[in-house]
Parts: sequence; C-alpha cells; structure tokens
Amino acid sequence: MQRIALDAMGGDGAPRVIIDGALSAVGEWPGRFALSLVGIPDRIYAVLPSEVPSGIEVVAASEVVEGHESPVRAIRRKPDSSIVVGLGLLRSGEVDAFISAGSTGAVMAASRLLLGMLPGVERPTVGTMFPTVGSPVLVVDSGANIDTRPSQLHQFAHLGSVYVRDLLGLEHPRIGLLNVGEESSKGGALAVATHKLLEGDEDLNFVGNIEGHRIVDGTCDVLVCDGFVGNVLLKFYESVASFITGVLERQLDPEVHGEGLKEVYRTVDYAEYGGAPLLGVNGVSIICHGASSARAIKNAIRVASVCLESSMVEDLANELGPASRRARVWRRIRRR
Amino acid sequence: MQRIALDAMGGDGAPRVIIDGALSAVGEWPGRFALSLVGIPDRIYAVLPSEVPSGIEVVAASEVVEGHESPVRAIRRKPDSSIVVGLGLLRSGEVDAFISAGSTGAVMAASRLLLGMLPGVERPTVGTMFPTVGSPVLVVDSGANIDTRPSQLHQFAHLGSVYVRDLLGLEHPRIGLLNVGEESSKGGALAVATHKLLEGDEDLNFVGNIEGHRIVDGTCDVLVCDGFVGNVLLKFYESVASFITGVLERQLDPEVHGEGLKEVYRTVDYAEYGGAPLLGVNGVSIICHGASSARAIKNAIRVASVCLESSMVEDLANELGPASRRARVWRRIRRR
Repeated sequence: MQRIALDAMGGDGAPRVIIDGALSAVGEWPGRFALSLVGIPDRIYAVLPSEVPSGIEVVAASEVVEGHESPVRAIRRKPDSSIVVGLGLLRSGEVDAFISAGSTGAVMAASRLLLGMLPGVERPTVGTMFPTVGSPVLVVDSGANIDTRPSQLHQFAHLGSVYVRDLLGLEHPRIGLLNVGEESSKGGALAVATHKLLEGDEDLNFVGNIEGHRIVDGTCDVLVCDGFVGNVLLKFYESVASFITGVLERQLDPEVHGEGLKEVYRTVDYAEYGGAPLLGVNGVSIICHGASSARAIKNAIRVASVCLESSMVEDLANELGPASRRARVWRRIRRR
Repeated sequence: MQRIALDAMGGDGAPRVIIDGALSAVGEWPGRFALSLVGIPDRIYAVLPSEVPSGIEVVAASEVVEGHESPVRAIRRKPDSSIVVGLGLLRSGEVDAFISAGSTGAVMAASRLLLGMLPGVERPTVGTMFPTVGSPVLVVDSGANIDTRPSQLHQFAHLGSVYVRDLLGLEHPRIGLLNVGEESSKGGALAVATHKLLEGDEDLNFVGNIEGHRIVDGTCDVLVCDGFVGNVLLKFYESVASFITGVLERQLDPEVHGEGLKEVYRTVDYAEYGGAPLLGVNGVSIICHGASSARAIKNAIRVASVCLESSMVEDLANELGPASRRARVWRRIRRR
C-alpha cells in the first residue's frame, strides 16, 4: 500500500477538487493507496462524505500558505501549515509521497528544507509534460528556476532523463536543448555554454538544439531550458490550445462534431499528467498546477505512485550521487 | 506610386514565391506600386511571364547570401548580392522600401550598414504580429536580439508602440512585459529591471507584466521580451496551430467541416501580415519569414506600403530622436 499525503488546502479549487481527486483515486484503484488529506479539519469534513471511504484519513493542519506570501518566510512562520505538516509526514517516514497544488515556491522551499537535496544536486527543478501527437515531451525547467547557469541546465538534463525513463519507460530518453537555431553557435551565452556541456556528456542521449517549432514534433523526450522560457511556454501552450478550440467551438456545431472536439481536448489536455515531481530533492514531492481539476489531482496521485514504484529518487541519487563521475565533473565546473 | 524593391533570391521558395507575391500585388492594387525584383536575371525571367506586367521591373544582382553564411561577412564579401543591391537602391533613394525573406541576420546587418540607425537607437529590432481572437499583438523582439539589456527592451517598447500605432491605427497601444508572474518583483534580473524602466516612463501606456497564458487574450497590443523567448514563442505558436489543426483534420470530415476549419486557419494565419519592418533603422526594410508563401509576400508589400503612407520612419525618429527627453534618459542609462 502506498501512503500519500495530499495538501488539501492548496490550489484554486481547494479543498473540494483535492478531495474529489482523492476520492476518485481510491474509487478507481481500491486498496492501492492510503491517502492523508492534510489541512483544516472543519473545511475538509464539510466536503468529505459523512462516511469517510476506506483508504482516506484526515490529518489536521491549522494554517494555510497563501499564494502571495514570500515562500521561505511563509513556511518559517507557519509551521502548522498543510505544506509543512504534509512534508513533515514524508520526512518522518509516515507517508511515502506528498502532493500539493498550493504555492509552488513554498512547496519547493519546504521540500528543500525538510527533505534535503540529493547529494551533488545544485537546485531542484520541475518539469512539465507537454502533450504532443505522439509521446509527451518533458520541458525542464518549467518555472522553478529563473536565471539559471549552464551547470544547472546540465543537471536538469540528467534529472529529466531519469524521470522520463522511470515514468514513461524510455531507455535512452532523447535530450534536446531549446534554442533559436540548430547550430551549436546559436543562442545567447547560456544556450551556447549549455550546448557544450550537453554535447560533451556521453551519458546523455543529446540530440542537439531544438527550435520552437520542433518542441511538440516528437524530436526529443526531454527539452532543457531556463525556467523563464519554460514557464512562458507552458502557460502559452495551455492558452493557445483553448484559444484554438474556442475558435472551433464557435465555428463547429458540437452536436455534429462532438467526438472530433473531444479528441482535440484529450490531445492537449494538461490534466493527463496532473502533477510533476520536484526533481533533485530527497523524496517524492509532487507539484500540481494551481488550477488543477479533480482529474488532474487523481492523475497526480498516479504520477506519485509511478515515482514510488520505479524507485525514482534512488535512481536519481545513483545517477547524480557524489560517488559518480558526473558529480566530480560538476564540482569541477562549480569551482571555476 | 510607391517604389519597392524585393529580394527575389531570398527565402525557401525563391524566386518563385517572391515573384508570385509581386504579381499578385500589382494585380490586386494596379497602379499603386512600382516593384523592383532584385536578383539573378536568368532565374527571375524563367519564372516571370514573357510579357512582364506593368509595375514590375528586374534589377540585376549576381550574388546570393545563403542562410548558413555569417551575416556581416556575407554582406562584405558579396557586394553584388540581392540584399546589398536592394538596400543600395533604398539608400540612394531609387526605391522607398526593401523587402526580403532571405537571411534575417544579413538583412539586419546590411540595413544597419547601408541605411544607418535612427539617432539614439541602440539596436534595431523586429516584431512579429501574433494573431489573436481580436486584434493582433506585436511581440518585440521576435528573434533579432538575444541577451538584451533592460535599456534595449525599453527602446523596443517605444519602437513597437509607434509601429503598432501607425500600422493598426491604435492611438495609445498597451505595452506589456512578458514575465512569469504579475508582480513587479517577478522574473529574472532582466525582467525586474525592465519593469522598472517601463513603469517609470509616462510616455508609454504600460499595462504591466503579461504571463504566457495572456499573450493572445487581448490584454496588450505590444509585448516586450528578449529575442530568445520571442523567437521560441513565435515558432512554437506556428507549430502548435498546425499541430492542433492536424489533430482536427484527422478527426473531422473536411467535406462537412470545411468552413469551420478554414476559419481556424484564418485566425492563426501568419501570412496575414507577411513581414515586419526592421524597427530603428533609417528606412523601411521589411523582413519576411524564410518559409513565406506568395500570399505572405503580397501582404509584406502591403505592410511596406502602410509603413510608407504613415511615415513610420519619421514617426520613430520623432519619438526617439536625440532632441527628445527620451534620448537623454537613455544616454543617462547607457552611461551607468
């Protein structure tokens, strides 16, 4: 049985969508999960059915970190917040994973503080699965790290590679570097220096620079970029998908074209993956979109489950640990 | 009569699409243009109808700048290339505007060299019109400048503002700054410093930070960003539009849904604007997508025409000239 704590107070639709997602997960996969809903009991019980289904328990946390708060300050000032309490359960081994759709900054800061970093990793990162016609592409970093250094992007490539291997079962994920041209000399200082690191790393299946129009064409499985670009792309993709389907809906009669439209929605549906693990911390801490639906939360539970089954954190530690050649290279780079 | 030179050798479909675009422009607007097709005469005459329509002439240029060449070196080594000859016609006053779908870098370098910069402008920039449900948004810079400074993005805001005012007739274009959050403290060093400059400039109608999902929602008319992000976004947008319409085509019967699909294509059609002026140089030099269709070239001729009619270059010079308060501010910034 996998024990997973959910931040019941995080996200635009909390606590309802979190609870609905949890209910739907224990309904779909009975006996597989023990889910802990962490948050203000009154607000949780107001939504839970009077007879709480088996596989779900409530863990009290009296405080809530708000989106506008400074992450580090918030987690220090609110030790009884759902984020800190939930990650505390993970740290103490009472649960195996934690999921939150709350403040990404606060979850990151609390995860670093409570779980610690894997040895040799500079910064934790979050990748997002971009849907494509074929298998999805992991865009990493998708907003956690802005103004990154080449050595950090190099680490993100490894972190993303292991995650995609474990999540999608790809043996040698193809790594691309987001850039404005194909040649290694293209792009700004960050892109040029990162290209050199990725190209020189024989442990990565580096396929070269990827321009904007090739992100969703199936050329790579992991796309490495600074979190500023990744975040802009992610939000833009979501909005363009709904902009185009909006134009369609005005033009097409849903009575006649319902199935076609549904297929479009499915293809560009972000809720498919629901959440993404914070890569590089010592534990499975899953970050969800603030606007997550119940279905996204259910799928985030599935993502957490796959991370646990595939021993992702151990795999990351092995790939990146200080005993490995890789870490020595990074230490050398950092010292420069 | 507006005299416009076209680089007949530039772009993936040259010379055919360039010539087809020119023919279609003189066909649609007879008597309005005198178009000069600049390039290798044999190759141009092979495509032109045997009786060359009135309003079209051929200007010989024996060399072609290739996409893989270093821009600055190419224009120095190939003084008889279509780009250098065409811009030479503009410089000497024999034509009023120049249009090329060839190497963007080479057109930029040759424009700077032959036309010169407007006084007070640090770097020329290129904006691209992103189609939206409502009026389009100009994304500036869309790839000409990578690793920009805050003072440069500040200038791009002014250049884009004047262009949009002249092209679309908007009196006070709304300027947005692409960023990962709404608050002024969000983003990396570049975004934070640029926000400060834009916010403090009372001559700009600055509406604040714009996140990725709001680019095409009609919140701003000009979106300022570094050329790395702008270029990735531009190419991504094109590909996502065709990716989604591709999914649709597989799902929907075009016999039944033809009109709806056509409307989607129209909405996300880049060829609508065809080309964009290089902003900040002393002349109308229009840069087109390398993959331009004949329709895109025809529309680029229209864009050149509007730039000439609205005296865009004079407007830019007035807004940015050294006598203005603005230029004094920039000189102060640059000195720091």
